Amino acid sequence: MKFKTENAIVLVSGGMDSALTAALANKNYTLSFLHVNYGQRTEKRELIAFNDIAKYYNVKKKLVVNINYLSHIGGSALTDRKLKVEKANLESKKIPTSYVPFRNANILSIAVSWAEVIKAKRIFIGAVEEDSSGYPDCRKEFFDAYNKMISKGTKPNSKIKIETPIINLLKKDIVLKSLKLKSPIHLTWSCYKENKVACGECDSCGLRLRGFQKAGINDVIPYKKILNYN
Amino acid sequence: MKFKTENAIVLVSGGMDSALTAALANKNYTLSFLHVNYGQRTEKRELIAFNDIAKYYNVKKKLVVNINYLSHIGGSALTDRKLKVEKANLESKKIPTSYVPFRNANILSIAVSWAEVIKAKRIFIGAVEEDSSGYPDCRKEFFDAYNKMISKGTKPNSKIKIETPIINLLKKDIVLKSLKLKSPIHLTWSCYKENKVACGECDSCGLRLRGFQKAGINDVIPYKKILNYN
Repeated sequence: MKFKTENAIVLVSGGMDSALTAALANKNYTLSFLHVNYGQRTEKRELIAFNDIAKYYNVKKKLVVNINYLSHIGGSALTDRKLKVEKANLESKKIPTSYVPFRNANILSIAVSWAEVIKAKRIFIGAVEEDSSGYPDCRKEFFDAYNKMISKGTKPNSKIKIETPIINLLKKDIVLKSLKLKSPIHLTWSCYKENKVACGECDSCGLRLRGFQKAGINDVIPYKKILNYN
Repeated sequence: MKFKTENAIVLVSGGMDSALTAALANKNYTLSFLHVNYGQRTEKRELIAFNDIAKYYNVKKKLVVNINYLSHIGGSALTDRKLKVEKANLESKKIPTSYVPFRNANILSIAVSWAEVIKAKRIFIGAVEEDSSGYPDCRKEFFDAYNKMISKGTKPNSKIKIETPIINLLKKDIVLKSLKLKSPIHLTWSCYKENKVACGECDSCGLRLRGFQKAGINDVIPYKKILNYN
């Protein structure tokens, strides 16, 4: 086994993408895991997935942060109970109502504060650009701009950088790569709506199911309904 | 009176700089005020100042957010009770222990999330670069980089921009301008350490007192000790 001298923080939502990102970061870094509750509907289920994945990777440093101010601010179907979680429309070019305004910038700023204190030089996030919901804060150019901002806003010797190792992958390839690297897909949770059996219809279920179907593999978690995305 | 059609969010810590920034923003915008508690020692006193200043400007929309995860993360004398608040050393080029890692990025990300929802195009922050403690997240180039990052990470029609109208002012000029614009200095609180009578010795008191002394004006708030900075 390679001796890992550098620390990295991995943002682990509990979904399939962040679990694979952890698998990739685990090759070269000692991992610390950050999870954020922001008043989303599936907060409790995601936290279980986070803890299960942390256990799987034997992660010593975990930080769970509550930023439910995002649900007070509102503006998203994920946090505002007055808005309905829409059914997936994977062909649409519009930003869906599940978009939580500037959520990733909020989460990354927490990660950078923590990184400055625990002296981690890398922050891994499992954002996906192409095969995704089209959120503005999931695009490569957003993370590039964020990295420039970090270098201006932290101590000169901090040298913290965000890594987005799966940003250009299709969901199909995320499934295949997860299996290859033994990422614990069985422990993950993606559904935006339900906490026990995934709805199969929201944006996140739609993207996940389409990925599995295009990879020709059956997902292991339970669904209420499985639509055909092929 | 000019009719103000545009909304702006002002980050109001409760200090002299943010009060003047509110006075400047008030010329052209309808104001919404954001205040953040982050587990700092003077949290309660700053919140009183925030509410007093909001009342002074007749602000309708106020948001107070608790991000005490910053104190769990630690690394600063302002939030970590194990570290001592140092006496001001205004000539030092070192970043003082009062620096809260990446604090302003955390606060700004909350402001941008809120701005996207309430459709505010401007976010005002009373950061000061030269005549300050040398925090990396108070520099002009940090805010420039932050603005680029916002434009990549928000909806295309959001067009949110951070404004730093006093970033190049000396504290002396902040005092003089505050008086000229009738900014409510008497309602503000700057001390990092005490909640009733300002210590007069911490970095923030030092910068404030030096500003008043160089302007040839007496501060109106009470101090335990007034050192001579002239």
